[in-house]
Amino acid sequence: MRASNSSSEEQRFQVRKLQFSDKNKGFIELLRQLTVCDSVSDKDFEDRFWELSALGDDHIISVVEDESSGKIIATWSIFIEKKFLRNCGKVGHIEDVVVDSNARGLKLGKKIIAFLTEHARLTGCYKVILDCSLENRAFYEKCGFKQKEIQMVKYFI
Amino acid sequence: MRASNSSSEEQRFQVRKLQFSDKNKGFIELLRQLTVCDSVSDKDFEDRFWELSALGDDHIISVVEDESSGKIIATWSIFIEKKFLRNCGKVGHIEDVVVDSNARGLKLGKKIIAFLTEHARLTGCYKVILDCSLENRAFYEKCGFKQKEIQMVKYFI
Repeated sequence: MRASNSSSEEQRFQVRKLQFSDKNKGFIELLRQLTVCDSVSDKDFEDRFWELSALGDDHIISVVEDESSGKIIATWSIFIEKKFLRNCGKVGHIEDVVVDSNARGLKLGKKIIAFLTEHARLTGCYKVILDCSLENRAFYEKCGFKQKEIQMVKYFI
Repeated sequence: MRASNSSSEEQRFQVRKLQFSDKNKGFIELLRQLTVCDSVSDKDFEDRFWELSALGDDHIISVVEDESSGKIIATWSIFIEKKFLRNCGKVGHIEDVVVDSNARGLKLGKKIIAFLTEHARLTGCYKVILDCSLENRAFYEKCGFKQKEIQMVKYFI
């Protein structure tokens, strides 16, 4: 019964790379649950989409689509920074993880972080990092992360 | 007198982009003051150098060379992350800021952060961020930064 539930869930929730058509499936509205995200014109969306696609595996934006509603219910991104230190090492930066507030309880967050961590490891990164609020620390600790530094920011607008 | 000192300092300390020949001017040894940095072969250095150069203004590594000694005494990097949120906004990520322990007192750190902040602003970023240790928070606050989040990390090696 459990296996069958899990299988039907997997069918319902498709994990895949962001597609151009996702703009009309609630992608921008979902980002709005994370931070300020004004409407984006089709032209701006397309330009940014192809700009990021050109970076290949060095910058990936993925989504979960709920096949039953046709809506994007989760998204996240990871980009790979290339350094000279650590023997020309690479670092995975996780950014903009959002799970639709109506999709809590599906444990999507944990699956997403496991997926991203594995992507960073397979890409040859020596570490994967992210910045989060203090109240999310416990969640990331359960995913095997440890607090290391603090994030400093300067806004221009 | 002050102007003349300042001018001779500017002549002595040349700020410029990383060059391939900097490998032989103590660049790797300088990074070692920040973290683990094994020796890098000429081939690996060259490959990484051209890989990053291809990213243009989206990933800059700069250095300060002390013209009197021919040594690299400071380095830093900044890369520009492109997002969909914030109206297809951009974020400047400051990484790997190192000032030679023998070059303290020249206020290079403050100049470097001012330079990086301005680069992010001119590139159209809506914010610039960095991760640092708690003991460096006061320095970055003097540079106009504020603490926002915490950094979580998972190491693979």
